Amino acid sequence: MMQNTKFNAAILIIGNEILSGRTQDTNTSTIAQWLNSIGVKVNEVRVIPDIENTIIDTVNYLRDANDYVFTTGGIGPTHDDITAQSISKAFKLEYEIHKEAFKLLEAYYKEGEFNEGRQKMVWMPRNANLILNPTSGAPGFSVENVFCLPGVPSILKSMLGGLKNKIVGGEPILSHSITLRTVESEIANSLTKVQDQNKDVEIGSYPFFQAGKLGVSIVIRSEDQHKIDKCSSEILKFVDEKKIQIVVR
Amino acid sequence: MMQNTKFNAAILIIGNEILSGRTQDTNTSTIAQWLNSIGVKVNEVRVIPDIENTIIDTVNYLRDANDYVFTTGGIGPTHDDITAQSISKAFKLEYEIHKEAFKLLEAYYKEGEFNEGRQKMVWMPRNANLILNPTSGAPGFSVENVFCLPGVPSILKSMLGGLKNKIVGGEPILSHSITLRTVESEIANSLTKVQDQNKDVEIGSYPFFQAGKLGVSIVIRSEDQHKIDKCSSEILKFVDEKKIQIVVR
Repeated sequence: MMQNTKFNAAILIIGNEILSGRTQDTNTSTIAQWLNSIGVKVNEVRVIPDIENTIIDTVNYLRDANDYVFTTGGIGPTHDDITAQSISKAFKLEYEIHKEAFKLLEAYYKEGEFNEGRQKMVWMPRNANLILNPTSGAPGFSVENVFCLPGVPSILKSMLGGLKNKIVGGEPILSHSITLRTVESEIANSLTKVQDQNKDVEIGSYPFFQAGKLGVSIVIRSEDQHKIDKCSSEILKFVDEKKIQIVVR
Repeated sequence: MMQNTKFNAAILIIGNEILSGRTQDTNTSTIAQWLNSIGVKVNEVRVIPDIENTIIDTVNYLRDANDYVFTTGGIGPTHDDITAQSISKAFKLEYEIHKEAFKLLEAYYKEGEFNEGRQKMVWMPRNANLILNPTSGAPGFSVENVFCLPGVPSILKSMLGGLKNKIVGGEPILSHSITLRTVESEIANSLTKVQDQNKDVEIGSYPFFQAGKLGVSIVIRSEDQHKIDKCSSEILKFVDEKKIQIVVR
């Protein structure tokens, strides 16, 4: 198991729509891949409902336990958008109009369109740092190591680029996949040996069904390309010996 | 906010592949929708890595805090499949060969195919209850209120039916969606009034972009169809007054 990554993060998905199963979360994957690319490993993900005390307690736990916390959801204009006020309470900060955000949105909207509903989106924890939103105007924000992003996947995605300079990470976490036409039980023992001989590399084995066929993807993860290459050649050696077919995906 | 559901559950997704962003979790949505249909509400979801102590601590926390816990992942034959041994430790039970599971798989596989790798899948906490697997043989298991399912979505899905009689739930949680061609800020105030007048109904507002167009889905959730209908007609009243277009999805 790879345990040597210096920078870690938690992702906190806030929203009843994920817990009810109505909406499939895709933000975890987006944020995690982006974090890996800048050398930050995701330690855990939590999905919680739109309940103030739950948000406060969870944020306070996660921000102590991790270098970074990324929240998604609950920063829009409707009654169920309570992330900003909950974060204010978590940090014991005033929940107030953020002057810079107000100016941004005043300029963004046409005359008369910056209505009461939209003005709710500029209420934030005092002195929050803005996270700019190139898609739809309304910014996210950060307080200390907690970064609050919207729930709509396309908007969230567009905001990550602007965050890059605010996150200190390590070496990018690299990965390599080998996909085989086999079942896990055929390779389990050989794969265990490779893992035992390469303890600082993370090797995962993931069975799948695709187009009616069984297969296994082996994923090798490390910050060191040489270590990945070493594992990869050890795996390809037993794959060759066992005459297992490699699948090009 | 709806808080009156009597039966609740947590979902625990075990797997580095979700935390790395490589794999998109879809099991949460599958399990949550199924639980709602049998009157169990999902309180929280956690995604954690394949680390024994993390699994033990998280399972022990969640099984005390919830009526039911559903885990996914880590019950296959490879080195990174450590759910069964971790659950054994969480419950302080022996991790041993489950005789019934052994017989099942011995009968399932052809002569000679029930190899060492596959035999790992019959190691379970002592006296675990089996969860039958109509897709690929290897069963899941439960101990007290913790139900351990595989990570492969199609296999997991096929196993839920067999669980129904083991879960005591309440009234099914019903929902109704109204999709509008508008933006949230146009309806925020009116929707807040409806929520305030119907406090025991859960009303969510979810903006989306689809085919280049903006919209908002309003989702009303309750165990009582009459309460849903009442909210729905109150919402449709202000939608009509504001001349907002309803989208048939």
